[in-house]
Amino acid sequence: MPRNVFYAQSGGVTAVINASACGVIETTRQYPGKIGALYAGRDGIIGALTEDLIDTSLESAADIARLRYTPGGAFGSCRYKLKSLEEHRAQYERLIAVFRAHDIGYFLYNGGNDSMDTAWKVSQLATRLDFPLVCVGIPKTVDNDLAVTDNCPGFGSVAKYVATSMREAGFDVASMARTSTKIFVLEVMGRHAGWITAACGLASEAEGEAPHILLFPEIPFDPEAFLRRVDQCVKRHGYCAIAVSEGLHDANGNLIAETGTRRDAFGHAQLGGAGQVVAQLIQARLGYKYHWALADYLQRAARHIASRVDVEQAYAVGRAAVEAALAGKNAVMPAIRRLSDTPYAWEIALADLREVANVEKKMPREFISPEGFGITDACRRYLSPLLEGEDAPPFARGLPNYVRLKNIGVARKLADFAP
Amino acid sequence: MPRNVFYAQSGGVTAVINASACGVIETTRQYPGKIGALYAGRDGIIGALTEDLIDTSLESAADIARLRYTPGGAFGSCRYKLKSLEEHRAQYERLIAVFRAHDIGYFLYNGGNDSMDTAWKVSQLATRLDFPLVCVGIPKTVDNDLAVTDNCPGFGSVAKYVATSMREAGFDVASMARTSTKIFVLEVMGRHAGWITAACGLASEAEGEAPHILLFPEIPFDPEAFLRRVDQCVKRHGYCAIAVSEGLHDANGNLIAETGTRRDAFGHAQLGGAGQVVAQLIQARLGYKYHWALADYLQRAARHIASRVDVEQAYAVGRAAVEAALAGKNAVMPAIRRLSDTPYAWEIALADLREVANVEKKMPREFISPEGFGITDACRRYLSPLLEGEDAPPFARGLPNYVRLKNIGVARKLADFAP
Repeated sequence: MPRNVFYAQSGGVTAVINASACGVIETTRQYPGKIGALYAGRDGIIGALTEDLIDTSLESAADIARLRYTPGGAFGSCRYKLKSLEEHRAQYERLIAVFRAHDIGYFLYNGGNDSMDTAWKVSQLATRLDFPLVCVGIPKTVDNDLAVTDNCPGFGSVAKYVATSMREAGFDVASMARTSTKIFVLEVMGRHAGWITAACGLASEAEGEAPHILLFPEIPFDPEAFLRRVDQCVKRHGYCAIAVSEGLHDANGNLIAETGTRRDAFGHAQLGGAGQVVAQLIQARLGYKYHWALADYLQRAARHIASRVDVEQAYAVGRAAVEAALAGKNAVMPAIRRLSDTPYAWEIALADLREVANVEKKMPREFISPEGFGITDACRRYLSPLLEGEDAPPFARGLPNYVRLKNIGVARKLADFAP
Repeated sequence: MPRNVFYAQSGGVTAVINASACGVIETTRQYPGKIGALYAGRDGIIGALTEDLIDTSLESAADIARLRYTPGGAFGSCRYKLKSLEEHRAQYERLIAVFRAHDIGYFLYNGGNDSMDTAWKVSQLATRLDFPLVCVGIPKTVDNDLAVTDNCPGFGSVAKYVATSMREAGFDVASMARTSTKIFVLEVMGRHAGWITAACGLASEAEGEAPHILLFPEIPFDPEAFLRRVDQCVKRHGYCAIAVSEGLHDANGNLIAETGTRRDAFGHAQLGGAGQVVAQLIQARLGYKYHWALADYLQRAARHIASRVDVEQAYAVGRAAVEAALAGKNAVMPAIRRLSDTPYAWEIALADLREVANVEKKMPREFISPEGFGITDACRRYLSPLLEGEDAPPFARGLPNYVRLKNIGVARKLADFAP
């Protein structure tokens, strides 16, 4: 009797996490004799803990195909981190109890490095409890900060969005600079790793093109060096366009935008505002009129301008996860291995979950120009292929036509549990 | 001997103002015996005042064709308002002197209602000074607030961008709401007219879909009624997505985001922040975690997701302006006249510049739902056709491939003049 699959989405969602879900579901449907039902956790791992499972077999093939081009997390995601086995033992045991009750033989967890850590711990506990379970991680994060894999599904589309937006806003502010706005600041995501900020740099392909300055979380903010550069730029080009990471901090490690009060469920400070702080600093010190934009969720939800490479990779890691699970590969994660830059070529290789768990991959220093305000050619060679190709969703009535699944629950078998 | 054309772009630029420029230039090139050169003002009307003219005949047909899909203002724009003939008489006379020196017979001014006022005044003065000049306005504004014309080129593309972004962010926050973000706020442009805010409402096509609340500049902000609605929405749907106009104000007319200090060259307060104020109010009073986005220039520069209808109309008003000028129609503006909603049909009709000048068209009250937080079916019927169709630019290396013109200046003939 084939055992069932549990699949869940975790952490901040992306424009292509549903493409991974699509890859998972379409692939499981190709093995009806080997795999039973595919249950998705409603709102991520919370759905497993509360035994709130979604029966994906009740969704039509057409709707599942539409997941490939629908942003957000189709089954809901969550920010809920399972801590150590000691601290959260009851929760891990509950997971196994739910998996046992629903004959789950495969645990597929789609998320970032926190989630890869959870998947690895679940695999450890299942072994200890003698519960046969194959645990496979599926990489997802706009931050591109997962170890082992060359890049992360989700990042290429954000990169394409922010670089496109920066180029477009650059054309705008260049037009306005003579009598009005001379400074444009775009704040982008990235708490500790400057990959998204670096991607903004791709918008500039020749001297003088926007953006002119990138502010990375890897480089402590030096206001005086920054202001000198802004002023030079305005005097030379008439305007200055700047991309700022939300995680920009000073030499003492203090966040430029620290709100100081709010923290998310993972204990991270909730950011947003570094762009405004930097823009106001310019106005106060140099007197230039500014505009600033805060892309926030727009950047990671922008499926309308997804990278085709990113969509293909997101689908491929979903498919590979099911194939790995069927082959009995436990505690692994399909990773992307780059074969060449030009033309871009890649393949899927299996990484050890333990090597991915909780490791944060920052920008290598050699990807940032020596003075700290730009990207190097090596960085461009790395980034550029990840934005390649377009994959527009279908439109209806002038807007992208995304799918909403029925998301019908599976009957509960266990007593309530409050995570 | 055919006389020359002067063309200038004015005020905030849009994703399609260059499509109008493309229509103007391609059409003038079709009448070599009737029209001489087409000179563009560098940085708008400032270019005419300073005799800084760009010779567009030095640009290739291929590059001019690329203007159709390039955002921003290809020749530069400016925020510089010519006041009354009495107050700014020297400036108007300088304009005529420059036009006389370069044998300008046609003045084409591409802008909003301030610019239509300028074009009208120039036509008045030319008549008084016995200088033969045909003045034609070309409508442009993301705010959609010009009188007489059914809609304004530039608006449809912003509308498509903000509605798409709101829909995408809605999918994102819906995924996150169980354990994390429950509130998403998108701040959009619109100082006095809520057209762009209304366009966000198109993202929702069924009960419960994002956005759930729209905050218009036409409706004084009532915090208590708003908070009640937010709370109801979160309790019913799990999350609440809100679009806020930058021009939101209270019952006393005070801007919610008033910075109080900075004003642009037209005397307008520089806004930006209403979204954050509203989001923080929700957090303070209801305790829900929020995210907010500030689209700023991204919305009006987003040529990558322009409306095809908008691009076609922008081109058509440029073409019609040249044809009107050739026919000797003075002090007019090509306007868009709607012939039917479904299927959408429109034509160009000539409006009297004087009727357009300085009039601001607000949202009709019957386009806003009775309680003030949404749009009506009549509003949807009006807005929806303006977003129809896609018209993606070509991409290279993963990014939209926009044109930068050579913008070579015409030799000066007059003494310096400081506007």
